[in-house]
This record gives sequence, structure tokens and C-alpha cells, in this order.
Amino acid sequence: MIPIEQAFQLIDENVAPLPTTTISLASSVGSVLASDIHSDVNSPPHDKSMMDGFAVISDDVNSGIKNLSIVETIIAGDWPQHPIESGQASRIMTGAPLPKNADAVVMVEQTESADTGRVQLLIDSITPEKNILRQGVNFKTGQTVLARGHLVRATDIGLLAEVGAGRIPTRDKPTVAVLPTGNELVNHETMPRRGQIRNSNGPMLVALAQQFGLDVTNLGSSVDDPDQIADLIETGLNHDVLLLSGGVSAGTMDLVPVILKDLGVVEIFHKVAVKPGKPIWFGVSNREGRKRYVFGLPGNPVSSLVGFHLFVRRSIEKMLGSPTAQIPPEFGVLHTAHETRGNRPTYWPGKRIIDAHTIRKFEPLVWRGSSDLFALAEAEGLIKFQENSTAHPAGENVEFFPFV
Amino acid sequence: MIPIEQAFQLIDENVAPLPTTTISLASSVGSVLASDIHSDVNSPPHDKSMMDGFAVISDDVNSGIKNLSIVETIIAGDWPQHPIESGQASRIMTGAPLPKNADAVVMVEQTESADTGRVQLLIDSITPEKNILRQGVNFKTGQTVLARGHLVRATDIGLLAEVGAGRIPTRDKPTVAVLPTGNELVNHETMPRRGQIRNSNGPMLVALAQQFGLDVTNLGSSVDDPDQIADLIETGLNHDVLLLSGGVSAGTMDLVPVILKDLGVVEIFHKVAVKPGKPIWFGVSNREGRKRYVFGLPGNPVSSLVGFHLFVRRSIEKMLGSPTAQIPPEFGVLHTAHETRGNRPTYWPGKRIIDAHTIRKFEPLVWRGSSDLFALAEAEGLIKFQENSTAHPAGENVEFFPFV
Repeated sequence: MIPIEQAFQLIDENVAPLPTTTISLASSVGSVLASDIHSDVNSPPHDKSMMDGFAVISDDVNSGIKNLSIVETIIAGDWPQHPIESGQASRIMTGAPLPKNADAVVMVEQTESADTGRVQLLIDSITPEKNILRQGVNFKTGQTVLARGHLVRATDIGLLAEVGAGRIPTRDKPTVAVLPTGNELVNHETMPRRGQIRNSNGPMLVALAQQFGLDVTNLGSSVDDPDQIADLIETGLNHDVLLLSGGVSAGTMDLVPVILKDLGVVEIFHKVAVKPGKPIWFGVSNREGRKRYVFGLPGNPVSSLVGFHLFVRRSIEKMLGSPTAQIPPEFGVLHTAHETRGNRPTYWPGKRIIDAHTIRKFEPLVWRGSSDLFALAEAEGLIKFQENSTAHPAGENVEFFPFV
Repeated sequence: MIPIEQAFQLIDENVAPLPTTTISLASSVGSVLASDIHSDVNSPPHDKSMMDGFAVISDDVNSGIKNLSIVETIIAGDWPQHPIESGQASRIMTGAPLPKNADAVVMVEQTESADTGRVQLLIDSITPEKNILRQGVNFKTGQTVLARGHLVRATDIGLLAEVGAGRIPTRDKPTVAVLPTGNELVNHETMPRRGQIRNSNGPMLVALAQQFGLDVTNLGSSVDDPDQIADLIETGLNHDVLLLSGGVSAGTMDLVPVILKDLGVVEIFHKVAVKPGKPIWFGVSNREGRKRYVFGLPGNPVSSLVGFHLFVRRSIEKMLGSPTAQIPPEFGVLHTAHETRGNRPTYWPGKRIIDAHTIRKFEPLVWRGSSDLFALAEAEGLIKFQENSTAHPAGENVEFFPFV
């Protein structure tokens, strides 16, 4: 059994980012940039109006010249045909390029125009630069707008489109296969007979991995038969990541570590000082010139979930090219007192307290152990309790690790 | 121009949840439950062992009987064939059903067994119920495990599988079409000519709507030509939601509200006291017996983004069946002082400050206005500043609305 920090370090040392590739802008949400994104344009590309109104020379307005002849109408997409001179204005629409010599725009609501080719301003003064945006003030041609390692979110797609990033530099996404084992498992659409339970880990681990936009193969489940497990593991090793659950404890039927060794998967660690999820197994295999990562997660579903969030997710982030393997925790305090047991750091299902206070508070939920999925219905993440204490008063500082 | 709360209310009054349907468990992440989910099993389904070890009668151990004959081996998936009597134990694996009369499990690590059909316990006492979980303590047959209105997350899939929820009761997801308008727009894969800019709103709005798992149609963009806009809007009205951007201000080329009215889309509101995004237009049309919702978002991309998060997202959540239309804000304080202008509530791009403090702090980002997408690269959400103040000192209480 190794400390959790050592397990993290072993993952960081053994898991490598996947090869770089490019994908279309439209499919890039959830990918990590493999190189910086530079702009090939200024933003805005020209001095432009931020309002519908009239482009003027501010000196005119401020020296009392308020009835102006209209030179032209400039709409977005046009290019101004004429400069304006003293006594002149151009009608201009939001986003349209500013005509030469203009240095301010009077909002249309502050003007009167009888469509006679002249406009009357209803203001007595205007600040130079009013309602205009100069070329390149947002960013300039050649500038880095998003850095390598940035996770592309829907919010970023507008900026990427503006700078012409039609192909997004990123990395291959790992493919994942999921295989729970155990004689007791039946498909979730079946009514379990005496002694059986439904396979909940399989669908859950598939859904957890799909959150990262990964292609996930559900291999069903295997009974505790060495040949069947070995065959399905062979199939699973065609994927970058193989998630097994069950069969990694100390029982006579816990066959998985032995079978993995026989198949040439090199054990990196087995058993981590963490609660729940101690029996976790992690190993690496080389197939067809590419590393395969195998996680043997415990059979109890909450142990599997915690193992996924602590170890599998960290590996996926590393493969995707995230610069920081670990999402930073939220720091807050316990909303109500809590007790933990045992000598391992404990990750306990919890939720955020939403109230008008500015202090982050987290509530440990009623949870009956690693088989109790009901506690997760309300859970938003995991509260970490250190191993060296059991009584945790309300107000104690804790770290909270939100689910994705 | 109406207050923002009135706009919210008008959306809540006009937007209806879509019809109910059922979908497979595997495709249910992101859906909202249209009815309660009950369990058809007890959890656990039987009294079970939480450890690999030996099922014993605690009275035996506590009265000094520590060398026991082994009755049988019970692995998960089996059903015990024999009760145990005083002086007996059954070898049992994690998750396996407890034999009759047993009331505790001794961990295998606390025993010695020479494979002679007997086991020697290395402990002197054991608490009744140690290492066992009784039938139904997590939840019972018939119990509601997830309530109507619950958003299904990957974390919930395990529980849904355990209770046999093969088909998930939910609602139709709205289909969405996206159409920016403006003579200045060119596709993001094109180099803009003088006066042109790339269409950033289109790809961004598509990506924003896809975050909710929706089927989104990108209609490209339209020049400011009434016939072309009308044709494309007609196509867009085949979808539940039509997102337009541009053409809703006060300029001579702002054609959209007029065209929508001609096409029979009834205006619910136009212009909301919010910054950015004031010109937003919202209307409803009935086509083929189903309501169509049309949003005319402003052309500036950050205005479009804010309009999406405040109004479009609220409508989508309502259609999906979320019980609360508005995601609650995070309450915190300003990390640095900030100034706002104008007499409208302002939603300013900001990010969370991640440090070891337990107080939520938000940092307003450098932002040059509604055309400045660069500010969004770092933004995690929007900080709301009230309309009746301009100077906001560090430490001031603010609300933060995170992006999805």
C-alpha cells in the first residue's frame, strides 16, 4: 500500500500525452490546445463605430457646429468612400468602419435628421473617441490569444473563429474500454436473481469517461472465469485505457492482477492508502507502439467512482495534454460536524451549501459506505478528510473536489 | 426597454416544457427527469459481506471460540447453501450474501487457515454487525431514489443502473437553429477583406447550445437583405429555438424585428435594461402545433454571449423541464476594485480567484466592451454589478454567474 501522493506521482511519471493532431473548430470543445493560437487579424480590424449614429469631428461639435451635411451612409461591411471635413458627418451603423478625419460618433438618439441630407445634433459637446473603437485595441495581428494547454470551452469558440482558427491544434483523445468482472453481475435491464446485482459500474464508468469527449467501448461484464476475463482484457488492450472493476481485492476469486501480469501488463502500483478505493491496481502495457493504461478499480461502485476521479481522470487529463494534471480543489469549511474512521485519507460524498454567504461551505452527506450509490444522488463532489483525525467540527477547513 | 426581472418573468410565462418521452440509460446524461425514479430492488439486495474473510457468529468469537470449521465458500453471485452453527464459519468474499445465523465477518487478514477445513481467528473479540451490510439499508424496494426535475449526471448512471432504470423518463430536447446576419460577415475559414469580419457568433452560439446536448443547425449567415433573411428565418422556424444575431439595434439596416413580425412571430419583448445586450428581441410563433421561440441577439459577440446565458439558457432549461429556471449564482466578494458606468445592471466577464482562502473571490477581467472576445479567454463567468453604483471597492459583495 502506497500513499496517495506517491500514486499521483507514479501516474504522472508513467502517463504520456498522446500525439498531436488537428481537428475542426466545430468539434474542438473539450480539447486541449497543443500549441498557442495567434491571430491573423487585428481586433477590431479597423477603427469602428460602436453605435448607430453619425461620425463627426469632435472639434466641430465642441466649437458649436451642430448642423452638418451628410457625406454618405456607411454600414457594416462597407468601406468609407469619403473623408469628412469640418461641417460634415457620415451616417454610420454599429460595427461600420469610421471615415477618415472622424474621431467620435454621436448616437442616432441624440440627433434629428429630416432626410434632407443634413443632420442636427442635439448635444452641446462630445469627448474625442466617444463611441468608437480603434483598430487592434482588443488584440493585434500576430498576438497569442489562447495559450498551449488551454481547455477549449464553448465560450472560446467565438474568439477562435474571429482569429481564423479553422483547424485546432490538439492531441489524439484516448479511447477507453470498460469491463466490470464478477459472477454476481447482470445487465441493468435484467431483474437480478437471488445473490445477483445489476452491473452499475459498467454504465457509470462509460458515462464518466464520455464526459471528457472520449470514445468509450462498453465490453459488458465478465464472470470470474480466468479464460473469459483474459479474452475480454485482450480486446480491451486495443484501447488506450482499459478500466476494469472488481477482482482486485484479496479474495480467492480476485483474479485480475494475476491475469494482467500473464498478459504482459506491468504493474505500477496495487493498493493505495485512500478510503474508499484501497485495492486499486494500475499498470502499463505496450501494444502496437502505443502505451496502454490499465486500471483495476474496486468492485464497489463508490470505490470505482472515487478511483476514477482521483486516478483515471488525472491520467486522461495528462493524455489530453492538460498542463496541470490535477483540477485545483475548492477550499472551504465544513457546514456540519462530521466523523471519519481509519488511518487513510477519506474522500466523502458532499455538496456545496448555496446561501448568500461568501464563505464556501460543504456538507458531508449521509453515506453508508462504498456500495451506497444513493448518497451520490445529492453529491456534487468529494470532501477530503485527512488521515490523522477522526472528529471534524463544523467550520473545519476542508478541500472539496467537484465532479466534472 | 424593460427591467431584466420582467424579461425573466416573460420568458418563464411564455416558454413551456416540451413533451415527455423516454430515452435509454446510456444516452441520458444531461437530461432532466420527467418523473420520479423508484427502485425495484433493495440495496443491498441481501445481507452481505463488505470484506473478504469469514462469516462468523460474534458470540462465538467473544466467548473465546476462535478455531472454527469451514462450512462452505460463498462468492459474490452465489447463494449460501448452509446456515452456520456455533463453532462454524463460512469463507465469504466481498459482496457475497451472508449465511444464516452469521452476524459478523472477520477480515481474511485477521485469520490463519491451513486449508484443512478449519480457520483460526487472530482476534479476541468482534462487534456484532462488523463488516456486514444489511439488506435494504442503502434504499428499499419502491423507494424514490431520484426525483422528478433531477438533472442526470454521469455520477447518477450507477444508481440508475442499480435500480433497473433502463428507460429514463425525460422530455424532448429542443432543436436549435443559429443565424447571424450582417453584410460584414464572412465564414471563419476566410480571410476578411477590408470592412469585413469573420462570423464568430455563429460557431459560438452553436457551441453554447450544444453544451446542453441539443441538436443544433448552423444556418451560416445572411447579408442584410430582407428576402434572404426572411427565407433563412423560415427555415429556422422549423426548429424549436431560433437564435439570430445582429440586425436588432436602431440602425437603418436593422431589419430583423420587422421581418419577424411579417412572418407572424409575436414580439414578447424588445430591449432589456442590461449591459451588454440591451437590444435583445424575444418572440414566439406557433408552427405545426408546437411553439417556436425566437431570440434576436445583438451582433456584438459578447452581447450575444451574455444574452445567451441570461435569456436563451433560461428558456432551454425550462423546455428541458428543470424545476428552477435560473442556476443560483455564487456569492462572493470582489478581489480588486472595479468601476462600471451607466444605468443598467452590468454583467462583466470575470474569473474565480483560486487560493487557500475559504471566501469566494471574483476578479473582473480587462474588457474593452461588447466586441472584445479576448476578455473571455480567461473568463469563467459573469460578475453582476447593480445599476445604482459605479465605484465597486475590493471586498464588495457580488454575484457570479458561471458559464455552464
